[in-house]
Amino acid sequence: MATAGKVIKCKAAVAWEAGKPLSMEEVEVAPPQAMEVRVKILYTALCHTDVYFWEAKGQTPVFPRILGHEAGGIVESVGEGVTELVPGDHVLPVFTGECKECAHCMSEESNLCDLLRINVDRGVMIGDGQSRFTIDGKPIFHFVGTSTFSEYTVIHVGCLAKIDPEAPLDKVCLLSCGISTGLGATLNVAKPKKGMTVAIFGLGAVGLAAMEGARMSGASRIIGVDLNPAKHEQAKKFGCTDFVNPKDHTKPVQEVIVEMTDGGVDRAVECTGNADAMISAFECVHDGWGVAVLVGVAHKEAVFKTHPMNFLNERTLRGTFFGNYKPRTDLPGVVDMYMRKELELDKFITHSVPFSQINTAFDLMLKGEGLRCVIRMDE
Amino acid sequence: MATAGKVIKCKAAVAWEAGKPLSMEEVEVAPPQAMEVRVKILYTALCHTDVYFWEAKGQTPVFPRILGHEAGGIVESVGEGVTELVPGDHVLPVFTGECKECAHCMSEESNLCDLLRINVDRGVMIGDGQSRFTIDGKPIFHFVGTSTFSEYTVIHVGCLAKIDPEAPLDKVCLLSCGISTGLGATLNVAKPKKGMTVAIFGLGAVGLAAMEGARMSGASRIIGVDLNPAKHEQAKKFGCTDFVNPKDHTKPVQEVIVEMTDGGVDRAVECTGNADAMISAFECVHDGWGVAVLVGVAHKEAVFKTHPMNFLNERTLRGTFFGNYKPRTDLPGVVDMYMRKELELDKFITHSVPFSQINTAFDLMLKGEGLRCVIRMDE
Repeated sequence: MATAGKVIKCKAAVAWEAGKPLSMEEVEVAPPQAMEVRVKILYTALCHTDVYFWEAKGQTPVFPRILGHEAGGIVESVGEGVTELVPGDHVLPVFTGECKECAHCMSEESNLCDLLRINVDRGVMIGDGQSRFTIDGKPIFHFVGTSTFSEYTVIHVGCLAKIDPEAPLDKVCLLSCGISTGLGATLNVAKPKKGMTVAIFGLGAVGLAAMEGARMSGASRIIGVDLNPAKHEQAKKFGCTDFVNPKDHTKPVQEVIVEMTDGGVDRAVECTGNADAMISAFECVHDGWGVAVLVGVAHKEAVFKTHPMNFLNERTLRGTFFGNYKPRTDLPGVVDMYMRKELELDKFITHSVPFSQINTAFDLMLKGEGLRCVIRMDE
Repeated sequence: MATAGKVIKCKAAVAWEAGKPLSMEEVEVAPPQAMEVRVKILYTALCHTDVYFWEAKGQTPVFPRILGHEAGGIVESVGEGVTELVPGDHVLPVFTGECKECAHCMSEESNLCDLLRINVDRGVMIGDGQSRFTIDGKPIFHFVGTSTFSEYTVIHVGCLAKIDPEAPLDKVCLLSCGISTGLGATLNVAKPKKGMTVAIFGLGAVGLAAMEGARMSGASRIIGVDLNPAKHEQAKKFGCTDFVNPKDHTKPVQEVIVEMTDGGVDRAVECTGNADAMISAFECVHDGWGVAVLVGVAHKEAVFKTHPMNFLNERTLRGTFFGNYKPRTDLPGVVDMYMRKELELDKFITHSVPFSQINTAFDLMLKGEGLRCVIRMDE
């Protein structure tokens, strides 16, 4: 491409400080260095994690910063040493990477790459400790190695999944983060067999993606658990057969579910991050074979506790990160599930706005409206 | 047999009250009723559980009672409806059963049979609520459906594993309880792959059986953890490559193990029943793929607690009961592992006494001497 090796000037939505609306700016995007790729972002979606780090209430603030990590784009140019991608390839940026060389990448089970594991505090590229974004020469920080709220961004090759170029990027961009996280928690970790009962705790986008995994697995009964009764109607599209609001019961929700299911569900997936919900999710699975999976991230002081007998009666508790998907190895296959119409993605997209209205997407999420708002970068 | 259908008078070691030496008595053993089998016990071993219920410090005392549950014998006669066993078959009695009809028995994963799951309070047969043992017409209670401290005993057919008649009963009797519990925890639940690192917490007979499973799996490094330094030497016979005594360290033992193994062991098996050891066993496994298995039974007020992040970093915690072996389906195969010399059992047998000296076996266990004492019923 004519732009290869040169600085690209383009539009980006910059977070100058915590909690203030993003500001549309012209930024300079430097060429990719060794093992890096410059990507033209076509679609990006907003995820709770963007909002969390934009609000910066619970962590060290890193500003000014270009947020965004759930996206789809096309390779513009590649840096030295990049052999797996060429300009024109369709890619999904991922907030956690896969170097393919460390012990985790070599393990069949782990996706917690030693080199490229998510780092929310780092605002620079891992190769040289510098930012590729500047405004009038002053650096703007990156976010989780992706920074997709920019028309162009620079990403480590290990954080890019090369996907089927026929796949519609305005849909499969959702697979970059939340949807894969929930889906993989069910398909890769809980692994319900056809006909099993599954409980899903927390019916946001991640929880509904976990529910989609249960639907795809042929679960006979899918129990959605949420404190918000309004979630019930929406969840039906994802296969929810029963809805339980813990507020409607005086006894602990795990007891309610055990009674409903004559001993407990076969599988449970926890997507709220609340420690009590984690305990409920574990204690509501059937003895002998029940498996509970934790997805939601707990706060620092949270404690998971239960009586050891709940384990000894042959229950399993596992946690997962990004649905146990290895970004480069596994995401292309998830895209293929969508292309084969096994995985339904469109129902997660409740809103769509042009890039210029990105702050509307933040407003919707803060109000708890909808599931995913896709941002069209070319408008 | 000439005795079929008749009451058999034989010797039994009766526990008349908590903590008092067993008394050798002549008992009457009634013929087996529907779905029951009368078994001539040839060898029985002593397990901690016998001592625990003999001491009766933590439960409702059930006396007079015939204890014993780790044994090998030969079918003398069978009751109505028993088609799988005939007189002369070699069998291992098991304290928990397999009806082959309930949801647990139908599940590939569970061995927690609904009908015949261990019941430590029941002192009678499940069929008619009566005891088959009497002395001068007065009932003597059964123990966990086995009561093997008697030359003859009556057992539900679902609690008997039919085994290779060539197998030496004085050795394979150990597979009735503790050894299978530890072995199965490793082979069936932790499932280490060849070359993995394994930590075993608690180096009694169950822990050493778990270690034997690690040795059989080809573990590259087996770390034994015990508060008693004397356990180290014995553990070497079971494949122990490293020994850690938590008392020798100021930092928590999980941190010591994580440092020793550059991030944690691949698998851990907890065989003490102490809640702190359970927490250590879980927290010492590697993120990404580590699996910890709980075997030891905790006291009623025990609490397992950990930070949820330890799960979210892709660790798994599972509990097991009787090594997840289904007694009738799986134990014959464990006997076969011994016959093929894959599983070593002889090293667990540190003592042997004639039936008349059964109280010596209790003394040895109370002193913590040895691993297993086999009691020869015909002497």
